[in-house]
Amino acid sequence: MTDLTLLGLGDMGAALARTWLAAGRSLTVWNRTPARAEPFGDAAVATAAEAVAASRLIVVCLLDDASVGAALADVDLTGKDVVNLTTSTPAQARARAEWARERGARFLDGGIMAVPPMIGGPEAYIFYSGSRELFDLHADVLAVPAGTKYVGEDPGYAALHDVALLCAMNGMFGGVAHAFALIRNEDIAPTAFAPLLADWLKAMADVAHLHADQLESGDYRKGVVSNLAMQVAGIPTLLDTTKDQGVSPELLTPYLSLMRRRLSEGHGDEDTVGIVDLLTQPKVPA
Amino acid sequence: MTDLTLLGLGDMGAALARTWLAAGRSLTVWNRTPARAEPFGDAAVATAAEAVAASRLIVVCLLDDASVGAALADVDLTGKDVVNLTTSTPAQARARAEWARERGARFLDGGIMAVPPMIGGPEAYIFYSGSRELFDLHADVLAVPAGTKYVGEDPGYAALHDVALLCAMNGMFGGVAHAFALIRNEDIAPTAFAPLLADWLKAMADVAHLHADQLESGDYRKGVVSNLAMQVAGIPTLLDTTKDQGVSPELLTPYLSLMRRRLSEGHGDEDTVGIVDLLTQPKVPA
Repeated sequence: MTDLTLLGLGDMGAALARTWLAAGRSLTVWNRTPARAEPFGDAAVATAAEAVAASRLIVVCLLDDASVGAALADVDLTGKDVVNLTTSTPAQARARAEWARERGARFLDGGIMAVPPMIGGPEAYIFYSGSRELFDLHADVLAVPAGTKYVGEDPGYAALHDVALLCAMNGMFGGVAHAFALIRNEDIAPTAFAPLLADWLKAMADVAHLHADQLESGDYRKGVVSNLAMQVAGIPTLLDTTKDQGVSPELLTPYLSLMRRRLSEGHGDEDTVGIVDLLTQPKVPA
Repeated sequence: MTDLTLLGLGDMGAALARTWLAAGRSLTVWNRTPARAEPFGDAAVATAAEAVAASRLIVVCLLDDASVGAALADVDLTGKDVVNLTTSTPAQARARAEWARERGARFLDGGIMAVPPMIGGPEAYIFYSGSRELFDLHADVLAVPAGTKYVGEDPGYAALHDVALLCAMNGMFGGVAHAFALIRNEDIAPTAFAPLLADWLKAMADVAHLHADQLESGDYRKGVVSNLAMQVAGIPTLLDTTKDQGVSPELLTPYLSLMRRRLSEGHGDEDTVGIVDLLTQPKVPA
């Protein structure tokens, strides 16, 4: 028996495998395309069934959830500890947990908050959710490639945290693209502008703490520093400048429209956090 | 003569005035609505003309650019140093600089990167652009309420930096709202989620440095860690999760659409920075 088995040697799987080998863990690996397993020599086996038989801890890092079902369709998982790092939606992770339970396996889902080059480095971490027992039992092994953050027994929560952070990141990246577009064609070096932009966003990211407090208390006026009415008053300056600079407003307008809509519904003295209400369209009207 | 004159005592103007008084500067203040000037006692005068006559350095912090023109329409500005902190577009700031020049005044425009409660604190700062001579001459006075960042002789650049950072912030805030919407109705405390979200955004904000380097070199593959094709491959997980959680995708889809459009134009091996090209629709096709 080896310490663990890894199914999937794409860029991410291969990066994970290298950290475990470097840490002196005995490893069995399998990949659907054998060529990607060759660099791992004797650790590589020909079938997923052989790979699963070689360890109690089975880490899965395949292309998508369907690949997990396909690769393990006819494999005996009885008594195995399955840790699924394959990118999934929360619903897929929950269904996969049930699927594993029916096959006599314990299940932990993971959401990797890193790209492959970050694996093994100080900033990479992985959200885990599902069996706390399994997480605790394998904590040392799991901590080798990346930091670990356990976020609950619900096997969908790792994926939910993962997706939520990626969505927030895409929003920020959209804002960054808009900002760079505004200074394009001006005598402003992007590399001189970048530190101002990055430092500003880092300072403003703390809005998450304020909004969390407001959401939890239900009091959207609590600790407000720039209320919705003030934010909406500033919109013309943003849109006029965007137009003057010849930049498409498409990344900017959806958020501005939500601010205006929320203001029109009488929430001008609140923080902008009320936009969360508009996005979630609560079934019970407020 | 007093050290400086401040026109405008809204929340921001009043906050600025208090820091100068606290620092022992002699101040003349004026506000269109006299009631707001009352707390400043003898420092307050009845007309803008009296206020301007009282100092060489005139700081203007009014509601909008039109208010500046209205307040100073018949006031003699000859030999004055005008520092305009009124929220403006770059075009308004440039026109206002020309307007000041025609009246025999030197001009500096400012963009305040703070809300009133932050004035006098360590994180507030103000972008300045326009007359470098004027900025250097009054550097000590200007540094009292907030840090100073001079960004160029073009009087529109302070406003352009200001707007660009606010637009980027709105993008990030949209992402934050989407993330909170995703975890709503789940057994996840917003205040437990907030540190994960804020720390993630702070780490990812450094993308600005990478994208600046790519924009400056013109090589959008330079140093890419997660290319456009990989990002687009992850889109279904984001959209499916958003739908499953009952959240409107309206803040997410514009950026995802731009990623897909850029991929369809054959840039899958590049970083997402190419979205800046789509936003600015360059007149000379690439």
